[in-house]
Amino acid sequence: MVFRCELKKVVDDTYDIEIGHGLQEKLVADLKAGLTGRRRFAVITDSTVEGLYAKDIFEMIKAAGFGAEMFVIPAGEKSKSRQMKEFLEDSMLEKGFRRDCAVIAVGGGVVTDLAGFVAGTFGRGVPFVNYATTLLAAADASVGGKTAVDTPLATNLIGMFNQPEKVYLDIDTWKTLPEEQIASGLAETIKHGCLGDRELFEYLEENVEKIFAGDVAACEYIAEHNCAVKYKVVMQDERESGLREVLNLGHTVGRAIETVSDYRLLHGEAVAIGTVAQARLGEKYGFVTEEERARVEALLERAKLPVRIPDYIDKAALVKKLYTDKKVRDGKLRFVFEKGIGEVVQFGENCFAKEIAENEIAEIIAQM
Amino acid sequence: MVFRCELKKVVDDTYDIEIGHGLQEKLVADLKAGLTGRRRFAVITDSTVEGLYAKDIFEMIKAAGFGAEMFVIPAGEKSKSRQMKEFLEDSMLEKGFRRDCAVIAVGGGVVTDLAGFVAGTFGRGVPFVNYATTLLAAADASVGGKTAVDTPLATNLIGMFNQPEKVYLDIDTWKTLPEEQIASGLAETIKHGCLGDRELFEYLEENVEKIFAGDVAACEYIAEHNCAVKYKVVMQDERESGLREVLNLGHTVGRAIETVSDYRLLHGEAVAIGTVAQARLGEKYGFVTEEERARVEALLERAKLPVRIPDYIDKAALVKKLYTDKKVRDGKLRFVFEKGIGEVVQFGENCFAKEIAENEIAEIIAQM
Repeated sequence: MVFRCELKKVVDDTYDIEIGHGLQEKLVADLKAGLTGRRRFAVITDSTVEGLYAKDIFEMIKAAGFGAEMFVIPAGEKSKSRQMKEFLEDSMLEKGFRRDCAVIAVGGGVVTDLAGFVAGTFGRGVPFVNYATTLLAAADASVGGKTAVDTPLATNLIGMFNQPEKVYLDIDTWKTLPEEQIASGLAETIKHGCLGDRELFEYLEENVEKIFAGDVAACEYIAEHNCAVKYKVVMQDERESGLREVLNLGHTVGRAIETVSDYRLLHGEAVAIGTVAQARLGEKYGFVTEEERARVEALLERAKLPVRIPDYIDKAALVKKLYTDKKVRDGKLRFVFEKGIGEVVQFGENCFAKEIAENEIAEIIAQM
Repeated sequence: MVFRCELKKVVDDTYDIEIGHGLQEKLVADLKAGLTGRRRFAVITDSTVEGLYAKDIFEMIKAAGFGAEMFVIPAGEKSKSRQMKEFLEDSMLEKGFRRDCAVIAVGGGVVTDLAGFVAGTFGRGVPFVNYATTLLAAADASVGGKTAVDTPLATNLIGMFNQPEKVYLDIDTWKTLPEEQIASGLAETIKHGCLGDRELFEYLEENVEKIFAGDVAACEYIAEHNCAVKYKVVMQDERESGLREVLNLGHTVGRAIETVSDYRLLHGEAVAIGTVAQARLGEKYGFVTEEERARVEALLERAKLPVRIPDYIDKAALVKKLYTDKKVRDGKLRFVFEKGIGEVVQFGENCFAKEIAENEIAEIIAQM
């Protein structure tokens, strides 16, 4: 006999991204007004952000009468690991955290990706809030609900889709970012321009230096446009069945080179190199003109990003690493390509990635 | 400014539980007909079930033209760990599994809980199917979508809600179960009777010995009633915000004693002791009569289950362990109680757990 479990329901994961300056007090006011519905908070941050912003936020939350503990992971991409997830879980359990808590992530993409994953499986899911302190987190991690850790064999392959209760993009925090971190965030921003927002791309061609100078209007412009591009894509395909793959532009080579570099390359730097590889291969296929490809490279360079593969990278290892990409199907490499600037190439119904022979991309890599 | 991410959608997690005898061929036929939509399968099982059923299923899947690999964990509750999850993930990645696979769990509750969790976070979620080979899995793990691992500090607190594509309850497999495993499954079955199905409870009072004898009709009856009770509760409260807590009857003491025994007690044995503790405390409150409490104890004993706390248990440690229960709120213990036989006590709107002072339950534990 067959017993049917009918489990159809409406899920509403709607949330707000608040973009502004110095949003610490707003966060605490929101928690007081019932954001997350919890009264005990695990503030998760890293060793860099702790002293800059997280400790203040943690103290403000306690001063508001809530229960709170702060948990600090070492800064850097290597913390995005199962071991660090376990460390946070054990630390939270030890401090008596159970299902009646919420997580407040304060930091960049590593912190928000990891803390969102911790929240998603702690007590089978507790609410979480992201307080993003980097341009990269603003560009990449704030929309889409992707959380994950890396493993020795693959980046971002262990994780879940988990939407926060709210995201704060505090543009003031970008002032304390080292230049290479601003550049890293710009890589994802330029990628967003390439794949879905020609206006954003051209705005950056006019104004990229203003971001480094901390120009308020320019920073707000890119924060908002990053959200809008990503949201437009994600809203149509939350689970990455097709369209969402376009966000992976530049990430096939990017993710692989990030790992092969053993994280000497920042995520954005790796994506910049991957975006160039994509544009060069795309030029061969006629998806972009030589002039468009040159504009992409030029903008990345003005954003102080690498557009060539560093000498210390083992190119054979890099090609092999491409096969750990999540777009791989039936053992075949698949790439997303921009179509000119501001659009992507569509290869079929709901299909935005093209199968590529290994030697085609190996040739591009050899030339870079 | 505020950017709103509207993410409202209809989710349909409906699935079938097929109850029958020797369902291996049906499973393979279903996969051929498109169940999971994948063509590459990770068959996850344990060292006991491997030779009994999993290897055959694995061979049949390969013979049907699919890609498949088998991954074997050591039998026993201790395998429900983050380390074993990591082992499975690394093994799958090493064999080239990516997001285009599905997981087939073949085994009891440990295997299905762990494999369901692995599937839920592998590539941010791949489909999975449960082929349940124990009465406990049939009674406990088949409805509700709960997946989890244990940690040194708490059982089942790291996990997620994740619904399978289909569940097979193969009653034939119960024949190879050791008697204490049948008993362990009966503990959850009796618990279901206590909390929501008086008819099931009374059927067991008439027929419990028939389950040990492998009587087909009796086995089918309890498989179906287990699904029905649990489904009735879960359908109304998938995320355990209130009503679903009733399934936790007997589990406050049960889960704690399971851990304190270092898993010398099987899950069902621990639940049996916990159910008695609950009934004894409930008798003090007048939720059950002395006669009803005695009927519960008598039925558990006829099901070859312990109704007293073994001598090797440190009772002080047990009381302390109660605080790791997931129903704990603001540091207070909370218990679910049956109301007579076949119902639970409701303590308020959407509230089915009562706050208990430590000394009240400590006294019951001391007497047991």
